[in-house]
Amino acid sequence: MASRTLSIGIVGLGTVGTGVIRLIEENAMLIARRSGQTISIGAITARDRNKDRGVDLRGYRWVDDMLEMADDPELDIIVELIGGSDGPALTLAKKALTNGKSLVTANKAMIAHHGLELAELAETNGAALHYEAAVAGGIPAIKGVREGTAANRIERIYGILNGTSNYILSTMETSGRDFDDVLAEAQALGYAEADPSFDIDGVDAAHKLSILASLAFASRLDFDAVATEGIRAIQAADIAQADALGYRIRLLGLAERHDGDKASELFQRVHPYLVPKSHPLANVDGSTNAVVAEGNFSGRLLFQGAGAGDGPTASAVVADIIAIARGELSPAFAMPVKALEPCAPAESGHRIGRAYLRFQVADKPGVLAEITAALRDADVSIESLIQKERSPNDAVLVAMVTHECAESQVNATLDALAGSSSLLGEPMVIHILGDE
Amino acid sequence: MASRTLSIGIVGLGTVGTGVIRLIEENAMLIARRSGQTISIGAITARDRNKDRGVDLRGYRWVDDMLEMADDPELDIIVELIGGSDGPALTLAKKALTNGKSLVTANKAMIAHHGLELAELAETNGAALHYEAAVAGGIPAIKGVREGTAANRIERIYGILNGTSNYILSTMETSGRDFDDVLAEAQALGYAEADPSFDIDGVDAAHKLSILASLAFASRLDFDAVATEGIRAIQAADIAQADALGYRIRLLGLAERHDGDKASELFQRVHPYLVPKSHPLANVDGSTNAVVAEGNFSGRLLFQGAGAGDGPTASAVVADIIAIARGELSPAFAMPVKALEPCAPAESGHRIGRAYLRFQVADKPGVLAEITAALRDADVSIESLIQKERSPNDAVLVAMVTHECAESQVNATLDALAGSSSLLGEPMVIHILGDE
Repeated sequence: MASRTLSIGIVGLGTVGTGVIRLIEENAMLIARRSGQTISIGAITARDRNKDRGVDLRGYRWVDDMLEMADDPELDIIVELIGGSDGPALTLAKKALTNGKSLVTANKAMIAHHGLELAELAETNGAALHYEAAVAGGIPAIKGVREGTAANRIERIYGILNGTSNYILSTMETSGRDFDDVLAEAQALGYAEADPSFDIDGVDAAHKLSILASLAFASRLDFDAVATEGIRAIQAADIAQADALGYRIRLLGLAERHDGDKASELFQRVHPYLVPKSHPLANVDGSTNAVVAEGNFSGRLLFQGAGAGDGPTASAVVADIIAIARGELSPAFAMPVKALEPCAPAESGHRIGRAYLRFQVADKPGVLAEITAALRDADVSIESLIQKERSPNDAVLVAMVTHECAESQVNATLDALAGSSSLLGEPMVIHILGDE
Repeated sequence: MASRTLSIGIVGLGTVGTGVIRLIEENAMLIARRSGQTISIGAITARDRNKDRGVDLRGYRWVDDMLEMADDPELDIIVELIGGSDGPALTLAKKALTNGKSLVTANKAMIAHHGLELAELAETNGAALHYEAAVAGGIPAIKGVREGTAANRIERIYGILNGTSNYILSTMETSGRDFDDVLAEAQALGYAEADPSFDIDGVDAAHKLSILASLAFASRLDFDAVATEGIRAIQAADIAQADALGYRIRLLGLAERHDGDKASELFQRVHPYLVPKSHPLANVDGSTNAVVAEGNFSGRLLFQGAGAGDGPTASAVVADIIAIARGELSPAFAMPVKALEPCAPAESGHRIGRAYLRFQVADKPGVLAEITAALRDADVSIESLIQKERSPNDAVLVAMVTHECAESQVNATLDALAGSSSLLGEPMVIHILGDE
């Protein structure tokens, strides 16, 4: 029924690339009906032609040099699935867009670092740049924010953006086990990479947050300004204390824009948060992702689903291809790049909120007095406090939740305690997600 | 910054209409940046010009006869917010589209009954027909399904589509009170209409379900085929039993498509369901709505947010206006109406699942034997059974959960018991939401 054909070149044949091929083969008829065109795989390439990928690729034209695809007049769209912020992916992306070919990518690092440059290239050359799969896997979070909330001033946007971290945290929660143990198991099961730092140190979530923030706030994408802390320091004891207090611990990316009289500021942070059990994000377990956008008219909107995996990611990639087939050529960041507003990074010190603080202290007299004096001097008042001895002669855990105060007051408390011989190890600060 | 102007005519100035005006005024700059055009309110109308609506409308051109708007060359888009499946809304919609003006509407009844006819008019005349606000208020569920899941064969789509019913059910849940009592309170608070039947009898949810099903399954919209039952018969005791068994009761709309060798069938039902507490929909409380789409590659996607209210609904209406400003003119049901496939209504009898059955029975010997004999004769086996005496000489409640069986077997059980003097009142059947 579709008389026209849109030809795509797929670069990268890992699990996502082969997933895209499987999807296009399996759902071909539906895709043709929904896009009004036949989507045809015009060329494929990857580093190693001879690797067994579990998919029969013999029917597709293989191109040895991926850059040739960007020059190939028979291809309408280049689908970049090799990853990496710079290097071959970026070279390919620039070349394709410069040649007026539309680009569909799942590459969050490349978009976070070079999204604006690529978007300008797309604008200049009348091409589309789509990257739904770069954020939150199969969830249409980019379309949700770019189109669904378009009428709103977004108050804040936040979410669970890294499935590996959420899997580890929710497994710690259900099993009571400690971080290192759960991470090792996740690695053995293939849920975490051999080098897990991008995931568990928050870098991957920061890539995604910076992209969402630009869309939500019509601001220039600014990955470097994301304050990033991961989940390595979370202990089983923190999760148990949080649970007792009515919270679950989640690694959130959170962004807010503040428009002052003179200038606009963008706050972007990836950090562990205490999430009230009544909040929808507290029930997001395993490798599921979720994005919350709070608009001044829409109220709180939640988009939830699988944050990774070949099927969900392929679903997002092909949704972008269908959008291009339908003629969706609007700017990559919802408006021309020159219309995006530069925002200075916001200081976090003046932010008001409640925080969970955890100290491991030596089991000797006067330690609690020392901590509470530092809190008093910084004018931080305590809502609840738990002191817990782990075992005789072992470190004692002191956990507390503060009343609302400025983050600078918490920082001042920690500064005053820095170097104290009473403290064993770094204190842990976990912010508490507030209702606004 | 936007040099072009898109002029809209707003018909209907109730809470949604005035909300749209407030939104366009308050977020004007952002909307212009995001749509690349200035959105201007070119004309307004409603039944009563002199009613105090709490918004200053003196700056806008008032048109007495709304049908004039459909002929007005200065208006690009007609925003229909008067409601009603037929009558003036439909007359206006047809006239606007026939004249090549795009139509944005929040009117679920009109789309459910006449959506295909209007979509064909839009296609023929090169106009857009957008109706995001007709389903699930502020949640971009239509865009989520039409665009976000476009690459997928949807396995099933379901959700909490009526905020009033969900408010009543979740209030019954937290308060332990009975239906009539909670309904009366909801009416007093303005959460339920004086005539609540559209909401609590499932008609409103059925409107929305039929629209979602057409989009999800690329099938012809068929509202009349939705099997609809509301929540009037739910008792506090049912909610308590469900809770004890690990479930919450929610009014769900659920649709599935079955492609047989010869023909395709569409199953559409609005009915109370037992939802496992671990399912995201079990945690959707109050007037919140949520839509779940399960795609063959995306997996389970959840869209959640406010299902009604002036702000959220206005957010959806203006998102549609922005989409039109961005040039989004693709077909209303994602493909030309003639490409949508007719599907026969599916019989429910062969559906396999578990069910909750509740009987109110006379307190006399042999009643339980009579019920269990009927179950045995229909080959229905019981997973758990609770018999509960309410008070001496009062009716006894017998609640049970069946093992998996065909719905026809449950129906056969009830048929066998029909007219029995042991039963006091109609038995209640609540389906249990399965994992697939």
